Amino acid sequence: MPEIVTAAMLVIGDEILSGRTKDRNIGHLADIMTAIGIDLKEVRIVPDEEDEIVAAVNAVRARYTYVFTTGGIGPTHDDITADSISKAFGVPCEYDAKAYAMLEASYAARGIEYTEARKRMARMPRGADHIDNPVSIAPGFRIGNVHVMAGVPSIFQAMLDNVVPTLKAGTKMLSATVHCPFGEGLVGGPLGDIQKAHPDTIIGSYPKYGDGKFWTELVVRARSEEALEAARKDVEAMVAGTAASATDP
Amino acid sequence: MPEIVTAAMLVIGDEILSGRTKDRNIGHLADIMTAIGIDLKEVRIVPDEEDEIVAAVNAVRARYTYVFTTGGIGPTHDDITADSISKAFGVPCEYDAKAYAMLEASYAARGIEYTEARKRMARMPRGADHIDNPVSIAPGFRIGNVHVMAGVPSIFQAMLDNVVPTLKAGTKMLSATVHCPFGEGLVGGPLGDIQKAHPDTIIGSYPKYGDGKFWTELVVRARSEEALEAARKDVEAMVAGTAASATDP
Repeated sequence: MPEIVTAAMLVIGDEILSGRTKDRNIGHLADIMTAIGIDLKEVRIVPDEEDEIVAAVNAVRARYTYVFTTGGIGPTHDDITADSISKAFGVPCEYDAKAYAMLEASYAARGIEYTEARKRMARMPRGADHIDNPVSIAPGFRIGNVHVMAGVPSIFQAMLDNVVPTLKAGTKMLSATVHCPFGEGLVGGPLGDIQKAHPDTIIGSYPKYGDGKFWTELVVRARSEEALEAARKDVEAMVAGTAASATDP
Repeated sequence: MPEIVTAAMLVIGDEILSGRTKDRNIGHLADIMTAIGIDLKEVRIVPDEEDEIVAAVNAVRARYTYVFTTGGIGPTHDDITADSISKAFGVPCEYDAKAYAMLEASYAARGIEYTEARKRMARMPRGADHIDNPVSIAPGFRIGNVHVMAGVPSIFQAMLDNVVPTLKAGTKMLSATVHCPFGEGLVGGPLGDIQKAHPDTIIGSYPKYGDGKFWTELVVRARSEEALEAARKDVEAMVAGTAASATDP
């Protein structure tokens, strides 16, 4: 039996919801999860509001194997992720001794004042483990199944690289893409029949449009090579047999 | 008193969660909402699963003024948005006479077979209004406060252009950006004090990192010009007065 491991992502930040910053982390996490056999099942983007973060993290951490958050762990007043996650877990948010000392030493070595704001970056829920930050020292953290990381893409990616080896991977979802030069309207009927005949696969149809033409990418996904290949052959045969009566949807 | 109008977005599609397709609609909707004075408060990305779509749409439509969905309204078996939205509203999903005839005429004019799959694109919840689709005819629809649109970015954008004039706009959130050459750690403390002194504004701090340097963009947001300018002046004075002791966070 394939082992199913699931995940949700929480993107925390007013700047994403206002459009001021365009998220670049969702697609990256999705790619990594797919590569290691974890099913990303849900993403939520929430504002910098404690109640919203607490409600969202509690909703998803109960449902999925893992939760990954980005954003809100910097030194300013609007960085409320550590407090919110602590509240969600019902534990105090406090200075982590190791993080505090690490930041103190780093600033001292560079002759930079260890301000109250900078000290905020050493705060995390009691009992949390560090997620190392090779870019800018201040660590992310893990508590329970929730992994809290930075929103700056280069730092998020570096932190995620440190998290991945600690995750239990599921049976990887394999996929095969069949290019279809016709619109969905022409192949939708037979494709539905193929899906029914291959219940152990997920067959997706992705309409594409450009330069006044429609085409479709048909994607077969399955956890077993045999199931994948059987469905892929049927999809390929269907596309090959379809009369090119039109390129419209 | 400013009028607050809120919105949520539901992105429907396995292909976004698998990373196969990178979403390009969230940022666009966020920009448009901000431009017309509607606060986008939440985004959820959900899989092509009826129960998940029904639960998500019912959760957000009850909380926000408007809901916008993208994806899952094409002709294939995995396009289950119309059925799911109908179920969420407790109404039948059926062929819309006007959409059915419109598609029939369009295909007839082009000598293209009106397949069962293509007819699926005429299905919508009973009582829904059309959202015109100037790109590929098949309409989106509105039911209650939920606006259902295509996932293909060019079609989504064209549909949204048709929706925007029908929306009640709120008092627009104004914003001013103050460039700060220092990392957040240096300005975080005083910035928090400025936020406290200007409770009618939202002051965001966005850390930037590149080429081994940190800097910060400080963004003041408010619904009144006076409040915005008062806070902006304080932020500018704070940045100007900050000793450039370091460029680290």
